[in-house]
Amino acid sequence: MHHISLTIDELAALTAPVERAENADAPLPAAITGIAALDEARPSDLSFLGNIKYAPQVAATAAGVVLLPLGHPAKPRPGQIFLFVKDPSSALARVCDSIEQKLWPRPAPGIHPTAIIAGTATLGANVHIGPYVVIEDGATVGDNSVLEAHAYVGRSAVVGPDNWFKPRAALAEFCVTGARVKLFIGAVVGGDGFGFEPVKDPATGEVSHRKIPQIGNVVLEDDVEVGANATIDRARFATTRVGRGTKIDNLVQVGHNCRIGRHCFLVSQSGMAGSTILEDYVALAGQAGLAGHLRIGAGAQIGAQCGVMSDIPAGSRMLGSPAMPVKEALRVMAIQKQLPELIRRMKTLEERAAFIAEALAAAGYAPTTAGSAGSAGATAQPA
Amino acid sequence: MHHISLTIDELAALTAPVERAENADAPLPAAITGIAALDEARPSDLSFLGNIKYAPQVAATAAGVVLLPLGHPAKPRPGQIFLFVKDPSSALARVCDSIEQKLWPRPAPGIHPTAIIAGTATLGANVHIGPYVVIEDGATVGDNSVLEAHAYVGRSAVVGPDNWFKPRAALAEFCVTGARVKLFIGAVVGGDGFGFEPVKDPATGEVSHRKIPQIGNVVLEDDVEVGANATIDRARFATTRVGRGTKIDNLVQVGHNCRIGRHCFLVSQSGMAGSTILEDYVALAGQAGLAGHLRIGAGAQIGAQCGVMSDIPAGSRMLGSPAMPVKEALRVMAIQKQLPELIRRMKTLEERAAFIAEALAAAGYAPTTAGSAGSAGATAQPA
Amino acid sequence: MHHISLTIDELAALTAPVERAENADAPLPAAITGIAALDEARPSDLSFLGNIKYAPQVAATAAGVVLLPLGHPAKPRPGQIFLFVKDPSSALARVCDSIEQKLWPRPAPGIHPTAIIAGTATLGANVHIGPYVVIEDGATVGDNSVLEAHAYVGRSAVVGPDNWFKPRAALAEFCVTGARVKLFIGAVVGGDGFGFEPVKDPATGEVSHRKIPQIGNVVLEDDVEVGANATIDRARFATTRVGRGTKIDNLVQVGHNCRIGRHCFLVSQSGMAGSTILEDYVALAGQAGLAGHLRIGAGAQIGAQCGVMSDIPAGSRMLGSPAMPVKEALRVMAIQKQLPELIRRMKTLEERAAFIAEALAAAGYAPTTAGSAGSAGATAQPA
Repeated sequence: MHHISLTIDELAALTAPVERAENADAPLPAAITGIAALDEARPSDLSFLGNIKYAPQVAATAAGVVLLPLGHPAKPRPGQIFLFVKDPSSALARVCDSIEQKLWPRPAPGIHPTAIIAGTATLGANVHIGPYVVIEDGATVGDNSVLEAHAYVGRSAVVGPDNWFKPRAALAEFCVTGARVKLFIGAVVGGDGFGFEPVKDPATGEVSHRKIPQIGNVVLEDDVEVGANATIDRARFATTRVGRGTKIDNLVQVGHNCRIGRHCFLVSQSGMAGSTILEDYVALAGQAGLAGHLRIGAGAQIGAQCGVMSDIPAGSRMLGSPAMPVKEALRVMAIQKQLPELIRRMKTLEERAAFIAEALAAAGYAPTTAGSAGSAGATAQPA
Repeated sequence: MHHISLTIDELAALTAPVERAENADAPLPAAITGIAALDEARPSDLSFLGNIKYAPQVAATAAGVVLLPLGHPAKPRPGQIFLFVKDPSSALARVCDSIEQKLWPRPAPGIHPTAIIAGTATLGANVHIGPYVVIEDGATVGDNSVLEAHAYVGRSAVVGPDNWFKPRAALAEFCVTGARVKLFIGAVVGGDGFGFEPVKDPATGEVSHRKIPQIGNVVLEDDVEVGANATIDRARFATTRVGRGTKIDNLVQVGHNCRIGRHCFLVSQSGMAGSTILEDYVALAGQAGLAGHLRIGAGAQIGAQCGVMSDIPAGSRMLGSPAMPVKEALRVMAIQKQLPELIRRMKTLEERAAFIAEALAAAGYAPTTAGSAGSAGATAQPA
Repeated sequence: MHHISLTIDELAALTAPVERAENADAPLPAAITGIAALDEARPSDLSFLGNIKYAPQVAATAAGVVLLPLGHPAKPRPGQIFLFVKDPSSALARVCDSIEQKLWPRPAPGIHPTAIIAGTATLGANVHIGPYVVIEDGATVGDNSVLEAHAYVGRSAVVGPDNWFKPRAALAEFCVTGARVKLFIGAVVGGDGFGFEPVKDPATGEVSHRKIPQIGNVVLEDDVEVGANATIDRARFATTRVGRGTKIDNLVQVGHNCRIGRHCFLVSQSGMAGSTILEDYVALAGQAGLAGHLRIGAGAQIGAQCGVMSDIPAGSRMLGSPAMPVKEALRVMAIQKQLPELIRRMKTLEERAAFIAEALAAAGYAPTTAGSAGSAGATAQPA
């Protein structure tokens, strides 16, 4: 973390400590060059007590500077500075924001001489276009947007204002982004949908897959983020839509014609087959998979590796493949571990039933129905 | 969908309606600018009745133009045009094909001045080489092939005729494609196989993984498509082969030395470990995973998230992880939900068996074998 | 495999045969142009008997040259050459190493004129920088490192010595690699972590996800490899670390703040959520998924498609989702297939219990407790 550096004064200005304690029996840090959890911090690091359950770690931390809640009893060890603040977590957030602005300043407006921009493309004000970016015919880039090295904007695509495309992000033909959209390295928006129909060669009789034209586009609404190497397919016709504020993680797949609502979360390696709908505030955990043509109700939470093959009501929490409500899934998972024992108990009962029947037969009792006797006989054999 | 536009005359020419009905009580559309399902269409859209089950939606659709089967009874509302055709679906397909040809014309032959093409590379006739494409020593590009921006062709690789590499597609060293192959954005054909052997450092005794040279290649036969950011590894030696007409979706992984037959389907995020064989017409659904060194028989269908750990006979339909025949898998999945109830029933039977044994003991009956009595005694306790 | 060619003399020099047998009744090969398994080899191929279980294939192989263990009884057929060596597998490895060095020679040092290297970047000795590579401000590239076409090195990133970045590999801002690190095509090291916090718009009351700054970096230690299109996220703060010698396959996801030990294996499409720790020598099989904030003990082996939701002790072998010890998982998987049969046996036992109770009641025996009688009555009904 050599790349972070804040003086103690800068830290104090950002965190506005109400009180401050330091122990000068050893030289005090002049600056911090990293941020770390209490148990991992070194003397050059800033640490913080964000969750009271970590309070026991405060006494032992090696951090040079620690953000603590007001009134916390701990005393700094030699060379340590404690800053007591109303809310250590939000104080830390302000520190991180300030570092982020230092380390990731918005690139200055300008167009790199190696960028290739079609004569029919339109660029807004204050755009930053990096080296080897390619912008095709009829494309538009909104005001203040940043396209880093090797980014690609296809024909007639529309990049909204204040977008940030990281290196090598691609927005394909006719696709559209709203305001403040972020595409991370290698993200692909607007690949062809995976749609084919079988056709038979009249001559040879060989059946092959004929591509169904995928002539729609993708629309990413305001504040959408798409992670590294994630892929979102264009619609067969009409639009694959990702609603305002939805965040998509690395290596996620969104099939053609999907419609994703607002403020959804798609965690890494999750996937949606074609034409599936997510209402608002749906969360897909890692590696979850959704079949096609489904509707997932608002606020539903789909667990990691969940396999969803039918519609899900709003507010549901699902787990397992096939997906079940979380409580049910956890019960089933627990019982599965008891199955070997269950089988043993079953065998014992069968032996015992056989012995009892014997005893009864000896006493002259007969089954009341042939059926039960028959099946009883059947199951009296070891299974 | 602002990018689609067809006049009514163009539509009629493409769909050859046998009859036509319109209601001019409101102004009729002069053109359509989109295609949509009956229940989503706007007045500027073309819609269609492809599946009779949607017939009830015809009366309510807002579509400006609707393709209907001959003799369909519906009457257009004001401002609507109905085109009655033999087969609405194939009529729509002709419309989509025509739009696709307009929107994705084959780029004109030519070599962008920024393309870097090794002096020892060979280019066929009428190729299109886009900006910042790199073609390395000894590579070949076949007639009429298109390589879009940032595409990469490695040393001695062979691109067949009529290929279309979307931006940033990569064909690595020594790999070969047949005719009409399509690579989508970010597809990687010919990465190293993942093969290592343990080696012990004689000095330190530390065991590490030594890379096994991966000196083979990948061959994609005619009409293969590889989706966005999908990866296909080169063979250890010999060839990783993908058969004619096979379609591979986004983010799919094909391991080294796999041999995939003709006309297979690998849906998004599915993966094949090394040396596994797919015979012809195999389908892998989304997120399905295959272990290495397996043979999947012709026409087998492997369900979503399926985990295959052994060979699969031709024609099988598999589901679950580990994979089972679909019927069996569905039965097991159904019964898993009954497990809590099953446990309750088991407990009740055990209580009852205990009471019966008691009664018999009182009557002076003894088990015929120590074994069954012993086990009976064992299970008479609450489990 | 047209690209491999070794004369018989070169082969002999590499494999140092102790004995040699050939059958000149047909013309002997002057060279081999491929390597293949015994059952797939053609006359132009080199093959080998690496595992004695394939010995029966030796007599039938069409390979022109075969590496055999000393004293193997087989006799070459016309046109075949047999080379008898101490260890055919290691002899083959030497052949493959030599071919690899021929086919993948280290590119000559030099900087392509189209590479864009910031004035503030530092290049070591003998680096190879390919066409359209972009190296940003303050970045460093170590001695003898190779960056192929379209590779990207972000601001202040540090590429160690003897690295090899394949085309289009990306090392983002502030990230660091050790010695001999390999990034394959499309690999992304240093994308943003996926961290957000909910915020409510005071005006509209709408809740949205606010990005938590991701200001840490990624450190890849010596000898790490990252596969094609794999993604490794930068830490929230501090470092996402991959230990020395760890190998990461294609399309793998490593979340922010993960710490991976030395010599681990992450097979294709496996994924780790944030802050999870792998100790040394952990193996994740294909499509395995790990929840966040877990610790996986040294040497643990996590099976294909495994879903890990809790810490795993060192040396464990896990399988299933949720993960269980392999033996337990296999037993459960086997029993799941018996569940339908188990249900049938349960019904029969219940019928039989009902008939026995009847008989006893007739004999005047009553249950000792109302409870067991009641539940017995309850379960005597068909479930």
